Amino acid sequence: MQNFELTILGCSSATPTSKRNPTAQLLNIAERFFLIDCGEATQIQLRRFKLKFQRINHIFISHLHGDHYLGLLGLLSSMHLLGRTFDLHLYCPAELEEIINIQNKYSQTYLKFNIIYHPHKYINADLIFEDERVEVRTILLNHRIPCCGFLFKEKPLLANISKEILIEYHIPVEKIVEIKKGADFITPSGEVIPNQRLVTNKAMPRSYAYCSDTCYDERIIDVIKGVDLLYHEATFLNNMEERAKETFHSTALQAATMAQKAGVLKLMIGHYSARYKDLEPLLVEAQSVFKNTVLAVEGESTSIEFST
Amino acid sequence: MQNFELTILGCSSATPTSKRNPTAQLLNIAERFFLIDCGEATQIQLRRFKLKFQRINHIFISHLHGDHYLGLLGLLSSMHLLGRTFDLHLYCPAELEEIINIQNKYSQTYLKFNIIYHPHKYINADLIFEDERVEVRTILLNHRIPCCGFLFKEKPLLANISKEILIEYHIPVEKIVEIKKGADFITPSGEVIPNQRLVTNKAMPRSYAYCSDTCYDERIIDVIKGVDLLYHEATFLNNMEERAKETFHSTALQAATMAQKAGVLKLMIGHYSARYKDLEPLLVEAQSVFKNTVLAVEGESTSIEFST
Repeated sequence: MQNFELTILGCSSATPTSKRNPTAQLLNIAERFFLIDCGEATQIQLRRFKLKFQRINHIFISHLHGDHYLGLLGLLSSMHLLGRTFDLHLYCPAELEEIINIQNKYSQTYLKFNIIYHPHKYINADLIFEDERVEVRTILLNHRIPCCGFLFKEKPLLANISKEILIEYHIPVEKIVEIKKGADFITPSGEVIPNQRLVTNKAMPRSYAYCSDTCYDERIIDVIKGVDLLYHEATFLNNMEERAKETFHSTALQAATMAQKAGVLKLMIGHYSARYKDLEPLLVEAQSVFKNTVLAVEGESTSIEFST
Repeated sequence: MQNFELTILGCSSATPTSKRNPTAQLLNIAERFFLIDCGEATQIQLRRFKLKFQRINHIFISHLHGDHYLGLLGLLSSMHLLGRTFDLHLYCPAELEEIINIQNKYSQTYLKFNIIYHPHKYINADLIFEDERVEVRTILLNHRIPCCGFLFKEKPLLANISKEILIEYHIPVEKIVEIKKGADFITPSGEVIPNQRLVTNKAMPRSYAYCSDTCYDERIIDVIKGVDLLYHEATFLNNMEERAKETFHSTALQAATMAQKAGVLKLMIGHYSARYKDLEPLLVEAQSVFKNTVLAVEGESTSIEFST
């Protein structure tokens, strides 16, 4: 089975604490390593958790608040110093190119690899990455400055046909792919064998939605509906709902309400305000609405399993 | 006795390791907190070592390689978010203002405090800070891009006059300050009491020179001559002298030679290349030329005592 694993590198909000770093996550889908946001010290966290950062070819930056991108320059510099020569794709606000260029200009840094910029269009479900296994779309978030979340989704997997079935029905080799794609099989005598009798393991494609930073906004429900794992920021407890509204952030209760309304399988909350030393109350509040909630914890990895 | 204490926050060279952070140091002279360079994750190191960063009013940035300033934006943002309103002085390459402004523009961050910029003039011994206790001068370093070190020096302290001496010679109050400054005392009967019989504790002002990043360059000797503590970068062992030359860095042997030729009291080496897991060989090499050498170690503080 191909990997679909999320590792949390940082889960604090704007002000880091001695225990929590600003936002960054590493998502491995079938050995594609996607870095999602890159707060200060992301390269240090990657080293700390023994994750090889030269395998990262695609970096997704949600928005230009420092706690989501200030680690990028240092990471690019280390990639360069350690000999990277292959392309790096950056899905980000257009202005980030200017920020990177000006700093490389003054430090007289001439990267040995190309950065290919894919500036956000700030529309919902915009397809920004696609290959034979994975697609990534934007989620239009509602924050103080323009901000995109990201929806990572496997392509539908081909079904399996067991050797026993191939022998039992004398299925010729040239028919295998079309049956895997969903076709019925018609025997030489004209009998129709329905597809579902032939194939196994037709798992639903897995999906992960990253929603940070944002206030509670139901307009994203259509995009994230039914995902296997939703990461939704929960900067505050609900007794600070007013503060959440003012700062375009969410409460744990709101994150859970979103998970419930979007019918997701599992919710992970994070982007905790530095005021919360103990995160348990945030978890309890979210679970009161949406039971299958977990806390983002730095260094921990979560595998998304096939749901069928 | 007033404080004169250096704390190392980061001592790695351009590529940090899982054990070592990029360059930053906190120098406390008489409760003035000077931050010297501000590599990525400096704010995290300050928290880790329980150093209150709102007490820092003066930040000195040597040059615009990322490992010496990429932590600045995050630190400024945290100072702002935690309510700072008083001025911050930044002694730095002029271009840093543009780098800060562009990022604050795109993140729509309006700092609640003023940054007062003091751009480097790139001359030796330029007086860039002065108050009643301390003065700071630049040291012109020789690096791949324009770079300044910093010389921190106490003002000469006034000598002490003990109560016993005041009584013995019937010294009137209005004479005390001039005697503390060095004057002899003439008694009503015309007898001259020499200053050295009256005062005690006339300690030599203490000094600290920060030299990173630089290749070996004897033109700085006049500026750093006789300092109590010299921090000199030692990126490489001397078997990599060629590499040091190419990259405008120094070897441990060169740092020690500089300490010896400048007649300093103590040498601290740092800015270690990531290739050195064990730092002992760097120390041994430096001590072969200059005995009183120590390694920079993150989280450790060094107090400079009066030498007389």
